[in-house]
Amino acid sequence: MPCVTERIAVLGGGQLGRMLGLAGIPLGVEFGFLDPSGSAPAGAVGDLVVGALDDQVAARKAADGASVVTFEWEGVPAATARAAGDVAPVHPSPAVLELSQDRLVEKQALRALGVPTADFRAVDDQPSLRAAIEELGTPAVCKTRRGGYDGKGQHLLRSPADVDAAWAVLGGVPSIVEAFVPFRRELSVVAVRGADGTFSSWPVVENEHRDGILRVTRAPAPGLDRDLQDRAEACIRPLLDAHDYVGVCCIELFDTGDALLANEIAPRVHNSGHWTIEGSHTSQFENHVRAVLGWPLGPTTSRTPAVMVNCIGAMPRHAEVLAVPGAHLHDYGKAPRRGRKLGHVTIVGDEQVALSSATCRVLALVDGATL
Amino acid sequence: MPCVTERIAVLGGGQLGRMLGLAGIPLGVEFGFLDPSGSAPAGAVGDLVVGALDDQVAARKAADGASVVTFEWEGVPAATARAAGDVAPVHPSPAVLELSQDRLVEKQALRALGVPTADFRAVDDQPSLRAAIEELGTPAVCKTRRGGYDGKGQHLLRSPADVDAAWAVLGGVPSIVEAFVPFRRELSVVAVRGADGTFSSWPVVENEHRDGILRVTRAPAPGLDRDLQDRAEACIRPLLDAHDYVGVCCIELFDTGDALLANEIAPRVHNSGHWTIEGSHTSQFENHVRAVLGWPLGPTTSRTPAVMVNCIGAMPRHAEVLAVPGAHLHDYGKAPRRGRKLGHVTIVGDEQVALSSATCRVLALVDGATL
Repeated sequence: MPCVTERIAVLGGGQLGRMLGLAGIPLGVEFGFLDPSGSAPAGAVGDLVVGALDDQVAARKAADGASVVTFEWEGVPAATARAAGDVAPVHPSPAVLELSQDRLVEKQALRALGVPTADFRAVDDQPSLRAAIEELGTPAVCKTRRGGYDGKGQHLLRSPADVDAAWAVLGGVPSIVEAFVPFRRELSVVAVRGADGTFSSWPVVENEHRDGILRVTRAPAPGLDRDLQDRAEACIRPLLDAHDYVGVCCIELFDTGDALLANEIAPRVHNSGHWTIEGSHTSQFENHVRAVLGWPLGPTTSRTPAVMVNCIGAMPRHAEVLAVPGAHLHDYGKAPRRGRKLGHVTIVGDEQVALSSATCRVLALVDGATL
Repeated sequence: MPCVTERIAVLGGGQLGRMLGLAGIPLGVEFGFLDPSGSAPAGAVGDLVVGALDDQVAARKAADGASVVTFEWEGVPAATARAAGDVAPVHPSPAVLELSQDRLVEKQALRALGVPTADFRAVDDQPSLRAAIEELGTPAVCKTRRGGYDGKGQHLLRSPADVDAAWAVLGGVPSIVEAFVPFRRELSVVAVRGADGTFSSWPVVENEHRDGILRVTRAPAPGLDRDLQDRAEACIRPLLDAHDYVGVCCIELFDTGDALLANEIAPRVHNSGHWTIEGSHTSQFENHVRAVLGWPLGPTTSRTPAVMVNCIGAMPRHAEVLAVPGAHLHDYGKAPRRGRKLGHVTIVGDEQVALSSATCRVLALVDGATL
């Protein structure tokens, strides 16, 4: 049998790229990354082409010799993904990447597929924002159509009087205004679709944010049952099937108690799926690699309950985290900076009391970390 | 808190180094390797200094900037390890490395610590071999004191008439002759000792060899109970404690039914411990990294029963292995060659029938692989 080494080119070289590499190298896969920073976290696990993410020449260079191209950040310009596509097939499709970059197009696409979302209106100027607020009522959330993440590019309108201020804060760019959803909790579903159309989702998780950044993920979501999993799958599967999607995708969901509303699509591996490294029979990273290479997917079932805690701005002391029973440390090798995701800790354990106690210890260490 | 990046220099850059890197990178650790080959498997996960393992200048270069030096092959000359020790501390100690390189010294050390072994005699010429055979009887196994692995450098004497042939085959070098042990099965115990003296062992495993090369490891060993685990620990712990050993070590054992006899020390992570990546709460690779950096060790308990199958000479098709439930593929990225360890597959499963059935499927794929 010939010895063919598969190579994956990844647009973006952050921690998601690094974890894709860590999952793919055991499968004999080589990696190349495109990233603007020469000290990108993924440099530890593959060849790094240093270049801007809108540099199509650099993207083609990173894709040179690759069997397939993928991306690890939804901010990668679709044009860059298409340029790399001159060299090798791109998965997931640049069309979905593009769709996820415009909040209006994203919501319209979900609605067209029958996926419930918050009620929304496109707004292009102050009068249309004012008209939308009259229809949707307040509170309402105005978001720029492009460029926001981790809570940026969003503004809450508490009353119609906030229209002028909101428009100014967001910079007067094309936006979307959404009815405020009185949700009980935020959930997400991470799923994978193989090259042959096979679909599989990991157990739905519950996410807790702070200052707009994911802080804790609990897997499975408390109270998860087959019905909730099915309803979450119904929010993501139509999108993947409609676009012949290949790879891992995440949809963030609002749980109102009565309904699940799709909020945001991430057409890539996702922070709320990091727990799968230790907690699932196959991690989101390994299944993304398997999917884009056309290999069979692994089971997305849970091995054990898990809690993931993000390390933001500063890392806790390694030795202290490692002393906590069931804690698994992930340090992305990034320089500390306020608000920056530097690592995460996943705590696993079959016994609820022990898991809660270990999680409390980790949260104290993570909160106690300073720059 | 200051951001200190730990760096480990590894002497040897084979698959064991590669798996050390894959375990250490998530902990934020950087790696440098010394290996004679520019295409060494560990090159995917760290900086590679290409140089002979007896090149002390190259060893010091590989150790440059490292917090600690370790090795991934017991054939690394102790002098090389000591030279790297000019740059950073070396763990495990080069003294144990040296001890493990001479089968006579190794057996004498074990006996001195009260660890049972087969009866043995040092032999330096044909007359002493003849005398030893008269005392020990036949069958007996004559082994060169240095340089043998994977069944090389050994010769079985079925009768005293075989003395001249054995001496010629082994090249007339200083050797050891051992009484033949009518063992029921081969076991091994992999253990780790932390910088603070903490000791922990993974469940004892059963090993099956073919042509002198490890082919299958079953974890835990069938019938393993606390008594057997304790007796195995008693074969390894005295050695580690006596040498203030820091890191992972393996001892291969003969199980005669009545007793365990220590056969061979590997002062490093070991092929019979590969199952720990998926099967244990902490892998041997992660605990070696944690030990040599002075961090707390993780639990060595089993998560699930596991079977490890080596891929020797040729790799099976990736997609076929990945389609087997519970199978985890590890491809070291090495060029195929007869008798060469190219990868392994670990099959995990809680249910004995499913585990056996999946193992049979993997063995068929591995046996069916051809160059």
